[in-house]
Amino acid sequence: MPATLLFCSLEIHKKISMKYLLSLFSLLLFSTFSLAQNKDSIMVKKMVDEVMTNATAYSNLRVLCKEVGPRLSGSEGYAKAVEKAREMMLKAGADRVYLQECMVPHWVRGEKEKGKIILADGKEFNLNLVALGNSVGSDAAGVSGKIIEVGSLAEIGQRAAEVKGNIVFINIKMNPTYINTFKAYSESGIGRRQGAAQASKYGAKGVLVRALSINLTDNPNTGGTTYNDSFPKIPAVAISTNDAERLSKEIKKNNVKSGWFFSGAKMLPEVKAYNVIGEIRGSEFPDEIITVGGHLDSWDLAEGANDDGSGVVQSIEVIRAFTNLGIRPKRTVRAVAFANEENGGRGGRAYFDEAKKKNEKHVFALESDAGGFTPRGFGFTASDEQMNKIMQWKPLFFPYGIYDFQRGGGGADINLLKNIGSVLCGLVPDSQRYFDIHHTSADVFENVSERELNLGAANMAAMIYLVSEYGM
Amino acid sequence: MPATLLFCSLEIHKKISMKYLLSLFSLLLFSTFSLAQNKDSIMVKKMVDEVMTNATAYSNLRVLCKEVGPRLSGSEGYAKAVEKAREMMLKAGADRVYLQECMVPHWVRGEKEKGKIILADGKEFNLNLVALGNSVGSDAAGVSGKIIEVGSLAEIGQRAAEVKGNIVFINIKMNPTYINTFKAYSESGIGRRQGAAQASKYGAKGVLVRALSINLTDNPNTGGTTYNDSFPKIPAVAISTNDAERLSKEIKKNNVKSGWFFSGAKMLPEVKAYNVIGEIRGSEFPDEIITVGGHLDSWDLAEGANDDGSGVVQSIEVIRAFTNLGIRPKRTVRAVAFANEENGGRGGRAYFDEAKKKNEKHVFALESDAGGFTPRGFGFTASDEQMNKIMQWKPLFFPYGIYDFQRGGGGADINLLKNIGSVLCGLVPDSQRYFDIHHTSADVFENVSERELNLGAANMAAMIYLVSEYGM
Repeated sequence: MPATLLFCSLEIHKKISMKYLLSLFSLLLFSTFSLAQNKDSIMVKKMVDEVMTNATAYSNLRVLCKEVGPRLSGSEGYAKAVEKAREMMLKAGADRVYLQECMVPHWVRGEKEKGKIILADGKEFNLNLVALGNSVGSDAAGVSGKIIEVGSLAEIGQRAAEVKGNIVFINIKMNPTYINTFKAYSESGIGRRQGAAQASKYGAKGVLVRALSINLTDNPNTGGTTYNDSFPKIPAVAISTNDAERLSKEIKKNNVKSGWFFSGAKMLPEVKAYNVIGEIRGSEFPDEIITVGGHLDSWDLAEGANDDGSGVVQSIEVIRAFTNLGIRPKRTVRAVAFANEENGGRGGRAYFDEAKKKNEKHVFALESDAGGFTPRGFGFTASDEQMNKIMQWKPLFFPYGIYDFQRGGGGADINLLKNIGSVLCGLVPDSQRYFDIHHTSADVFENVSERELNLGAANMAAMIYLVSEYGM
Repeated sequence: MPATLLFCSLEIHKKISMKYLLSLFSLLLFSTFSLAQNKDSIMVKKMVDEVMTNATAYSNLRVLCKEVGPRLSGSEGYAKAVEKAREMMLKAGADRVYLQECMVPHWVRGEKEKGKIILADGKEFNLNLVALGNSVGSDAAGVSGKIIEVGSLAEIGQRAAEVKGNIVFINIKMNPTYINTFKAYSESGIGRRQGAAQASKYGAKGVLVRALSINLTDNPNTGGTTYNDSFPKIPAVAISTNDAERLSKEIKKNNVKSGWFFSGAKMLPEVKAYNVIGEIRGSEFPDEIITVGGHLDSWDLAEGANDDGSGVVQSIEVIRAFTNLGIRPKRTVRAVAFANEENGGRGGRAYFDEAKKKNEKHVFALESDAGGFTPRGFGFTASDEQMNKIMQWKPLFFPYGIYDFQRGGGGADINLLKNIGSVLCGLVPDSQRYFDIHHTSADVFENVSERELNLGAANMAAMIYLVSEYGM
């Protein structure tokens, strides 16, 4: 197929000299690379076929979603999830399953949010809104004021006089032309993450943030916000993208008199929670630890099916694939269901702290926390040398739909492990559907596809197998 | 990024000599290829951004699904869909919209199917079943008999004595390890497509076919079946994969006494139907015709959202992208909503017949008929020379998630155009979810993602743009 050649040549053309290519070529011609790849491809196929045929990831996800349900830190749901994850890891065949304690924030939504816009023409309309995670609530009377619409955080300061004593409406759209929707999330998410702190700095009484959906929907996304300790904590809610569009239109027509909203949110004292860890001990290098994980906590609005029940059950599936095939990895493999990713990151912190304290050797950590969708690639945070090694595995994944091995990647729960030398890796699923679901009431079991979930787990199992064989 | 180089080198290593590589390299170094690619990449981005930002594909799909609904050939729904598709094409800005007549089969499901299995232990269980398209129904009393389970069509003949006067249960599973699920569909679909004809040849009274779902569900898939005119037409139904598993287990335990089912299906006289065609006339080579299409008919069990409302609205979106951007293509572009793909193929036949009769020059035809999921690639049926030309465009699609340009492809409605020299092309979306939905009651609007649908349309628009510029 000359066309493939053409593309490869073009790529090379841009990047290297002929001389480099020639030496690389000679090296490969005399290597035994092909033989090793052949054995590896057989083993990778074995792992993938095992998962695609016998996976229990989907039935485990059903348990987390339907028997447990929402699992926000500090909730009864989270405690129940710990028990279920423990059982799943034992059933998957882990040698040892244990809990790792940490203290976590205990935020509750409280009485349901309400809000409306009062128009100058005498009409009003109700808002579809949800309090942002970790935000404070209003008093019983709620927050009232003029609505000051801004398109950036900088604009809050520029309009300080208007903002003072009123409600800031942060209307930052997600860019629909970014094919990687996380890029849009990262860019536009600043309003949700820092808007309340910024508005409070200029004396606002409350904040409405445009929900982080790319599409126009009535279903707002929650998610964590932060405050600046130098200023008062003010109530902060997300409003649906449809409501944001309508509100913005009415403001442009100069038809908005005021807004009002109530939030019952509050932060309670911290409570104890647990990471759940299931381990298969390595046969040759048991002290070299490979972590594969997702987070067990979820927002309270739904079942946390994609965020991140999927990552948890996929990680447990990796353990099950090894044990069901009777393959003992050379290095120790740990599946970890992390606590408190959504509103504190304490689970990842506790895992790292203990690893550091015990002087554990962490070689590789893989997190799945971008939804249970068809996998498209992996992202890596690694040295050049490690990256070269990893890149040799790339062709092994082509038959299973993984084409992207990119620089940069990891996951909120594993990123600290970089400090003790671990390579970080993140599963990169197709991202088109994520922000219709992410942190909304639509994050339910029915919005995960069995085969997409399994294919993610299958590729994770293959990756973990290769690392367990060859180290880093 | 040395790792990318490594992979490209490996690919080349397998395929060509050093000498060939060197000459290819020199050629490229002195070509103006890069400049052309740059202009093309700007135009491709323009098409993609237009669709991702302003598409009406999703709202059009809502109309086809919710205002029209099921659109089987001969139904009122189909007639209504013709009118809606016509309106959509006009609104998209086509120069000319017209209908193309054809005669189509008029099959109806009639009174709802029923069926049960009577066990030897005195119990019985009801079946989740649907009549196969184009099948005959039973009489009012239904079909009764022993159940003969076979794992292949060949086994029917081998067990002719048992089959005679009884019900054949064709239990061919779809292979879950095929990552391309269409491969499993094509392999295991033989039971649905030819099972009734084969069973009748050996005197069976009726056929139960395991539904073409990979997963275990209660929701059977319909789809067309065929008969052999030398033998009687016998009733044929699909049973859900869960029922197939249960039935097979009971048979293995020797616990099945008999089965019974009723089907109200019948074939009525043929009726008139129409392809809907919307055209933008080419500015430089108006006689060179590029077709982009999907099929407007759907099975009767649901809304035909993925199969193939998606393909229809994506094709109309291609027209809208051209006209909204004010780009007049050099060659004539036709969006076609084909009639009767599901149970006759008469729409595709009529389009071809007229093209041949009028001696039209068809250069390229693209069909989207594999669901409105995230696009992964295109498949092409083309000469080596054409394929080389097409392959030069491949890198232009990488930013939009399309990595596969494969040999082989087209679509049921366009394949005949190969006979008059057209290149055939099929959009290849991610296939993991398709067989949970395909031909079942789950093929509804809610099971299509707005961004996935748009991304398919965006890549189709980009492909049609390139062909309209450069021909074939």
